[in-house]
Amino acid sequence: MLHLLHSLRPSFLLSSSSRVIFTRSMASIDLRKALSDNQSALESQANAVRQLKSSAAAKSEIDAAVEALNALKLEKSTIEREIHAQINSEGNGEGNVNKEAFRQAVVNTLERRLFYIPSFKIYRGVAGLYDYGPPGCSVKSNVLAFWRQHFVLEENMLEVDCPCVTPEVVLKASGHVDKFTDLMVKDDKTGTCYRADHLLKDFCNEKLQKDLTISLDKAAELKHLLATLDDLSAEELGAKIKEFGIVAPDTKNPLSDPYPFNLMFQTSIGPSGSSTGYMRPETAQGIFVNFRDLYYYNGSKLPFAAAQIGQAFRNEISPRQGLLRVREFTLAEIEHFVDPEDKSHPKYSEVADLEFFMFPRQEQVSGQSAKRIRLGEAVSKGIVNNETLGYFIGRVYLFLTRLGIDKERLRFRQHLANEMAHYAADCWDAEIESSYGWIECVGIADRSAYDLRAHSEKSGVQLVAQEKFSEPKEVEKLVIAPVKKLLGQAFKGSQKNVVEALEAMKEKEALDMKATLESKGEVEFEVCTLGKTVTITKNMVSIQKEKKKEHQRVFTPSVIEPSFGIGRIIYCLFEHSFYTRPSKGGDEQLNVFRFPPLVAPIKCTVFPLVQNQKFEEVAKFISKSLTAAGISHRIDITGTSIGKRYARTDELGVPFAITVDSTTSVTLRERDSKDQVRVDVENAASVVREITEGQTTWTHVWSTFPHQSSTTTDE
Amino acid sequence: MLHLLHSLRPSFLLSSSSRVIFTRSMASIDLRKALSDNQSALESQANAVRQLKSSAAAKSEIDAAVEALNALKLEKSTIEREIHAQINSEGNGEGNVNKEAFRQAVVNTLERRLFYIPSFKIYRGVAGLYDYGPPGCSVKSNVLAFWRQHFVLEENMLEVDCPCVTPEVVLKASGHVDKFTDLMVKDDKTGTCYRADHLLKDFCNEKLQKDLTISLDKAAELKHLLATLDDLSAEELGAKIKEFGIVAPDTKNPLSDPYPFNLMFQTSIGPSGSSTGYMRPETAQGIFVNFRDLYYYNGSKLPFAAAQIGQAFRNEISPRQGLLRVREFTLAEIEHFVDPEDKSHPKYSEVADLEFFMFPRQEQVSGQSAKRIRLGEAVSKGIVNNETLGYFIGRVYLFLTRLGIDKERLRFRQHLANEMAHYAADCWDAEIESSYGWIECVGIADRSAYDLRAHSEKSGVQLVAQEKFSEPKEVEKLVIAPVKKLLGQAFKGSQKNVVEALEAMKEKEALDMKATLESKGEVEFEVCTLGKTVTITKNMVSIQKEKKKEHQRVFTPSVIEPSFGIGRIIYCLFEHSFYTRPSKGGDEQLNVFRFPPLVAPIKCTVFPLVQNQKFEEVAKFISKSLTAAGISHRIDITGTSIGKRYARTDELGVPFAITVDSTTSVTLRERDSKDQVRVDVENAASVVREITEGQTTWTHVWSTFPHQSSTTTDE
Repeated sequence: MLHLLHSLRPSFLLSSSSRVIFTRSMASIDLRKALSDNQSALESQANAVRQLKSSAAAKSEIDAAVEALNALKLEKSTIEREIHAQINSEGNGEGNVNKEAFRQAVVNTLERRLFYIPSFKIYRGVAGLYDYGPPGCSVKSNVLAFWRQHFVLEENMLEVDCPCVTPEVVLKASGHVDKFTDLMVKDDKTGTCYRADHLLKDFCNEKLQKDLTISLDKAAELKHLLATLDDLSAEELGAKIKEFGIVAPDTKNPLSDPYPFNLMFQTSIGPSGSSTGYMRPETAQGIFVNFRDLYYYNGSKLPFAAAQIGQAFRNEISPRQGLLRVREFTLAEIEHFVDPEDKSHPKYSEVADLEFFMFPRQEQVSGQSAKRIRLGEAVSKGIVNNETLGYFIGRVYLFLTRLGIDKERLRFRQHLANEMAHYAADCWDAEIESSYGWIECVGIADRSAYDLRAHSEKSGVQLVAQEKFSEPKEVEKLVIAPVKKLLGQAFKGSQKNVVEALEAMKEKEALDMKATLESKGEVEFEVCTLGKTVTITKNMVSIQKEKKKEHQRVFTPSVIEPSFGIGRIIYCLFEHSFYTRPSKGGDEQLNVFRFPPLVAPIKCTVFPLVQNQKFEEVAKFISKSLTAAGISHRIDITGTSIGKRYARTDELGVPFAITVDSTTSVTLRERDSKDQVRVDVENAASVVREITEGQTTWTHVWSTFPHQSSTTTDE
Repeated sequence: MLHLLHSLRPSFLLSSSSRVIFTRSMASIDLRKALSDNQSALESQANAVRQLKSSAAAKSEIDAAVEALNALKLEKSTIEREIHAQINSEGNGEGNVNKEAFRQAVVNTLERRLFYIPSFKIYRGVAGLYDYGPPGCSVKSNVLAFWRQHFVLEENMLEVDCPCVTPEVVLKASGHVDKFTDLMVKDDKTGTCYRADHLLKDFCNEKLQKDLTISLDKAAELKHLLATLDDLSAEELGAKIKEFGIVAPDTKNPLSDPYPFNLMFQTSIGPSGSSTGYMRPETAQGIFVNFRDLYYYNGSKLPFAAAQIGQAFRNEISPRQGLLRVREFTLAEIEHFVDPEDKSHPKYSEVADLEFFMFPRQEQVSGQSAKRIRLGEAVSKGIVNNETLGYFIGRVYLFLTRLGIDKERLRFRQHLANEMAHYAADCWDAEIESSYGWIECVGIADRSAYDLRAHSEKSGVQLVAQEKFSEPKEVEKLVIAPVKKLLGQAFKGSQKNVVEALEAMKEKEALDMKATLESKGEVEFEVCTLGKTVTITKNMVSIQKEKKKEHQRVFTPSVIEPSFGIGRIIYCLFEHSFYTRPSKGGDEQLNVFRFPPLVAPIKCTVFPLVQNQKFEEVAKFISKSLTAAGISHRIDITGTSIGKRYARTDELGVPFAITVDSTTSVTLRERDSKDQVRVDVENAASVVREITEGQTTWTHVWSTFPHQSSTTTDE
């Protein structure tokens, strides 16, 4: 069932857009009410006009009534326009013409410049599989390198690298084999598969957008359905599909009842065919199963974090939303293991003063919107469960904004109670606004001890930590000691079952038995494994509270898990970085990606102004210096006009361009301002290196080097 | 069939060790001859002694004969020892005690320090799957980062990132669906699977090593079998298994006939179950299918190279050799596309003077060993097929040796004619010597136009390049124009076959026909598709040479492919970097990995000499400076003796250690020399950064800063 999916990791793989509509579209109910009132008025006015005409009333009277009718009709179309406008501004996808057009412009540029390519295109592709082409691949490796620097290196995390092929037992323990499913329906005749919730969602959206005659109650019902779609059981979804008469979109054939489809790619390990394996749906399990070794590697000390970057797989029923919902993707996951009794973080103070958009549970259920909150306040007020969770929220904020994600279109949304797994202490998603709506890109969850316990149970290997006490602590412990000899005489072959049942008693039960034995000398005792009750006498068992000295505490650590959908972050980054500006002649719009140097696919291009051997030699000299400095770059020696070459490079998001127009000095141009300075040939590479590595800024370079007018360019 | 596997990429996945034995073990034939002669002499001498005794000969005579017999027995055991020693030095695995012990020491250290971990260990693991633990993962990401710098950035390659999940049609075109197989046999009763060639190999090795009574001819036969194992068909392998009476090793049950088992992990894409997919066995196909877009992205210019780093999968029948033969591994592949008529390389001169071990085909078949050759000489003499192939061999040499691979245990071995695919122009493997023998780690192949042609044919999309001529070229072309009307009248329903056969004639055949038609007026013409000969008369076809102007040349590029098995390179690097040295007291051997800073998992450790707040603050200050400089490091504040802490860090291959023994200056120790200098606290991080980034060397630091005696250490 879908709501079970929420108890699995990584929850951020679920789009949360349907959930958000509910709180944001309440206002449109007023408009629908107005439309409904208008409809009644229209009908009665139309009746009035008909009556007047049939009763041959005075022309002036009829004219007045018709005028009133026309006014009502005008009002109706105004209300309808407003409703449409509101539907569009809610970003429900199909409706929003501006967002659609913007997305199309971004996607066209991305595909044309090979940021990404539908995989296996010459074979007509496979839905939900995409290649990163050269610039996309560079952006991705820059994002991952920065992730390693910002998280792994900065926090001294233990990075591991585990295989994608995973044996069934591991994913049985994690719950994926049983619960990592979506509900599917099949076209009764062709067998084509659809996601049940998608069909219902499409039906509701279509009805709400196109059919303005539906009653106020009906509209409210559909909206409520959209908001609670993720919580519906197979039976409930099936009932709604039947009730609304939803059929297969392509053939109009009837549909099967919804049933769960496991989203893991299944395979077989080894030649015998008897060992089932899956392509991992997340990277985290590889860390959990290694906990014991990693804890030892860390000197048997908590807290510590392990991290992994790698491919994960999800056999979507019918992938949609381009790069946002794909069948294979790169995850970067952190598992921070911490003592459940101490979730403080030593570096928490470094992020406590950050202030950004948060969307706590309370604000969501009361219909408010996200608001700027100081992180320290959210933690101290208990809105965020603990310091470590807060620390990672802050670090994720810094990570995303340094990549170039717009602060104004980033929010941290807390999971609602019904979204969270029962064992989770707290859970926040970093959501980024894109043309598809708010997209879950990072999930930051306090998952308590759930995962380690699940693998301890299944494998029989204890995944625990110890806290050694500086001096031994005295604790009172209940000791149950069955007297085996007497029990053997009394119960013969059943002795073992009785002994085990006695030893398994909880504290209260044992103390009750002790009291009864002391007062009555014997007690009736139910042994489940025998399916009957036996009589235990006082001399058959000793139950005592004893004081013991303990030297350590053994416990299962809690895990706090920030989990990053790298492809989703990159797609949102593409949208946030894209803009257009008019060409010099003003006759066309030019595309620009304003990537910061950190993520730009190429840091610099080198252009000889005209095709000429001397300039080309200078360009090659600069290229060699850039390579030596580790700066990725391209030389463009085509004879194309310099303005066109700048435009081409802006469209790839290259932040700097060096134009060779003499053999002693060159111009250096910054992409967004189009400002140019003049630098010596010998210094060109090192100036670019200093800016791209953050040792200086363009502003500083601009104030230091002589400015270059645009006479040598055609911008 | 196994030899078909050679026509598939990446061939380096095959171990070539069996092939090498043949040329290297010829010498042992002399010893076996000596043993066989000794055996005959022994038998006749023993007979002589018996005869002397039975004929009651003089004691002196008998004593002399017994002495001669004993001398022959001594000679026998000497020869046997020599044979064993030679078997061991051939590195056939099982035999070599020293190599085994060395490997065990390396592997123990690697597993204990979590360089790698058998995957899913708490569930008793899965054969052929390994995790990289923290230090192994760092080494891997350092190797990959250097690969990107050394190849992708240096050559301006187009890096792409394609999914692992691949639809069947792509791998059908590449040949993997039909031919990526190993031959397997099954235990007739239990169904346990074995690799057929492994069983035969084990049998031959065991026989050669343990059974010294086998005849000279038999020994030669077994050795020849070992050398040609990869070329045996299923039938031939099956016949040998029957002939030798080989049974299942675990149960001694009889075995099935060998049959091919496809090594790809199979899965199903999407929910319907009707779309077969595989986990890619290599990354290269993702590049080939994108050729058209990449060529356009490169401005429709050749040559250019595309590159990809990613996971590849191979469902081994029974994985052996630890990290060297695994079921999932990281490949880094380059596809350099080049005009088949011009395989020069602009940067070839930069590598032409490199000199290293090469093992050309000629030296292998004539039983010689690898020898040092200047690369430029190998290319100019035609030993290496072309400049571009030579350029990449040189670049691979630089890459591997800069990582820390020992030059003396690295050779480039040319494929023998029977190893190469029919279409390949030339193929060289970078082989690294390890305790398992010579291991294929990089394959560098000129694969001609094979891959692009295969995908052009299957997809119907032309994967070609154009060369535009600066001015049109006049070319003479043969034009064959069948006169369909007359052919139709003559051949009715067979007309189409005749027309096609006429049009398909090669130039010479057509010109011969033209001459015959002109002299005799008709000609007998065989139409294969009809399976008969028809009579063609002069008026049925026109054959003319015509002059045409051509503006461009359209051709399928050749591809030169360096393909890197990253896991294999890393494992060999581990072995080449490992050594032991006595502890200070001389009572134990300490393990050291001599990784260069480039690949070291951690660049530096920071040790407060004693547990004390002031020193810890200094250590934290240095740690922050190292983080800011992007230098991975660890602080070790345990109270363990400084000598033990050095030993712990040497075992991880950490090149530098900073010991905090004052608040103003600290000592900096180099791992291999154990030399120490004293540097100011403020400079410590930047000195480490300069050495690790290659801006200075330890020798220079040693000559610049004051030396530190070991009084503050217990080394």
